[in-house]
Amino acid sequence: MTQHNFGDVLMEEIRRKESQVVVGLDPRVERLPAELKPPPGDDGGAAAAAAAITAFNRAVIDLVSEHAVAVKCQIAFYEQYGCEGMCAYAATLRLARERGLIVIGDVKRGDIASTAAAYAAGHLGMPGGDASAASDFIADAVTVNPYLGSDGVGPFLEAAAANGRGVFALVKTSNPSSVEVQDRDCGGRPLYEHVAELVEAWGEPYRGSSGYGTLGAVVGATFPKQLARLRELMPHTAFLVPGFGAQGAAASQVAGAFDARGEGAVVNSSRGIIFAWERSPYREAYGETRWRDAVRAAVADMRQQIWRATH
Amino acid sequence: MTQHNFGDVLMEEIRRKESQVVVGLDPRVERLPAELKPPPGDDGGAAAAAAAITAFNRAVIDLVSEHAVAVKCQIAFYEQYGCEGMCAYAATLRLARERGLIVIGDVKRGDIASTAAAYAAGHLGMPGGDASAASDFIADAVTVNPYLGSDGVGPFLEAAAANGRGVFALVKTSNPSSVEVQDRDCGGRPLYEHVAELVEAWGEPYRGSSGYGTLGAVVGATFPKQLARLRELMPHTAFLVPGFGAQGAAASQVAGAFDARGEGAVVNSSRGIIFAWERSPYREAYGETRWRDAVRAAVADMRQQIWRATH
Repeated sequence: MTQHNFGDVLMEEIRRKESQVVVGLDPRVERLPAELKPPPGDDGGAAAAAAAITAFNRAVIDLVSEHAVAVKCQIAFYEQYGCEGMCAYAATLRLARERGLIVIGDVKRGDIASTAAAYAAGHLGMPGGDASAASDFIADAVTVNPYLGSDGVGPFLEAAAANGRGVFALVKTSNPSSVEVQDRDCGGRPLYEHVAELVEAWGEPYRGSSGYGTLGAVVGATFPKQLARLRELMPHTAFLVPGFGAQGAAASQVAGAFDARGEGAVVNSSRGIIFAWERSPYREAYGETRWRDAVRAAVADMRQQIWRATH
Repeated sequence: MTQHNFGDVLMEEIRRKESQVVVGLDPRVERLPAELKPPPGDDGGAAAAAAAITAFNRAVIDLVSEHAVAVKCQIAFYEQYGCEGMCAYAATLRLARERGLIVIGDVKRGDIASTAAAYAAGHLGMPGGDASAASDFIADAVTVNPYLGSDGVGPFLEAAAANGRGVFALVKTSNPSSVEVQDRDCGGRPLYEHVAELVEAWGEPYRGSSGYGTLGAVVGATFPKQLARLRELMPHTAFLVPGFGAQGAAASQVAGAFDARGEGAVVNSSRGIIFAWERSPYREAYGETRWRDAVRAAVADMRQQIWRATH
């Protein structure tokens, strides 16, 4: 059967929900609401941490599913708890999918071709068959690191395309020291512009009817000028834009990531949503005891702010 | 207590064992010896695959522990089997450590600082305490991707230094398309030379008495000229050199990775050792029924070839 194209599905969901919001499920046990924290005295063992994380994610997924198009699970926050944490990651992917959310595995994997194929099978399914359709870590899309070039990205792309799933390649990340390698001057232009052109070209065979396709790009919200420039360089590449909220970017700063129709990008906020009760104005309005209301208000506000800045 | 420095420990092991060999434990279920393969008819479920992998690794670790200084576990080949696979990864790390081998987790992680800290806690332990000393995925060293710059690598380095462990940052990888990004001309020099200088500088505060330290570099064996050039650019950085054997490099080609004493580097072979019975001359000499003898002969030969090429 013909698979849907991930870029098409993502754009369709943006239109349907009138939302460009991705909520990052990056749980930190020490910051969970008191009611969900592993009890004091517990040494933070992995099983207790994993159970608390899953319970918290279940609640957050319910709270945000109306306003977000997708959730993004940063696997590091699960992986740090070992096998138990990885099972919490798998459980979280399932819970989000059951609520109709697109699920992005923020794994930033990248390796030589034969190894990349193993990662791709685990996170996106086998290119040919359905043997690993039940793999614990299957997401609708994953992030990958482009440092190894096309033979490292290719296996992810093939597995994704075969299964109607997607890939977001890092182009320009949101962290301050991304300049050290990514902004290196290569023939009068920063390296990330060359990487952008590679990504746009790698994705070309996998475009859908929306103009976007299987391969997207990660472009940090914390560099607004670069965001607009990269939108020009990658007209057929959907953007996943991290760095909104806790990392400092506002709606006006991410507007450059979108195309003229206000599509072509989704914006992620993690701590700014899931720990909304820790920051103004939600701390004052709700506080920790009403953390659920804070999460709901924060995601609704983010949705409205970005939609208005782009429509 | 003062921790040992990883670079010092690695050099000491090279001298003590007269070996610069790392065996890559990158199991592929479909290539396991018949006696260990999940039975035909079994659909390759994750639990059966994980059990077969662990049994195979146990045997290989026993066979190679005399001749290798370290094993390197490519986590992708475990991760593809989901939670069960990750537990097989954890079990393999434990088995190798019990046999006195240095254990390298080939995870190639890399992310923004707060996320990198979570990965580092899971794979190298907490910088300050011992809370996660029991984490399932703790290795003696891990590989990291430098594309995000110093704030992505820093948390790994701090966690490693605090626990006497190590980090190998990708500089020049062994795959053909590594040229697309890593060899990009940046001011008359390829990008990887700039990355090499960054890595040498990042590692400077963490050097031990051997001249090497906490931070090493991954430099592929498949580019011999670049290997020698990078040795010059990173005189205090230990090299982890993949690409020997199945990927095509011979002992003479990796000689440039070593310092004048024949130290400063370790060379990895994965498929060339663990599936030695599939290739000449071991196929003819042993075949699959004597696959154990083939593995033992292959690792002994590799040890001798590299030692002779460097001493």
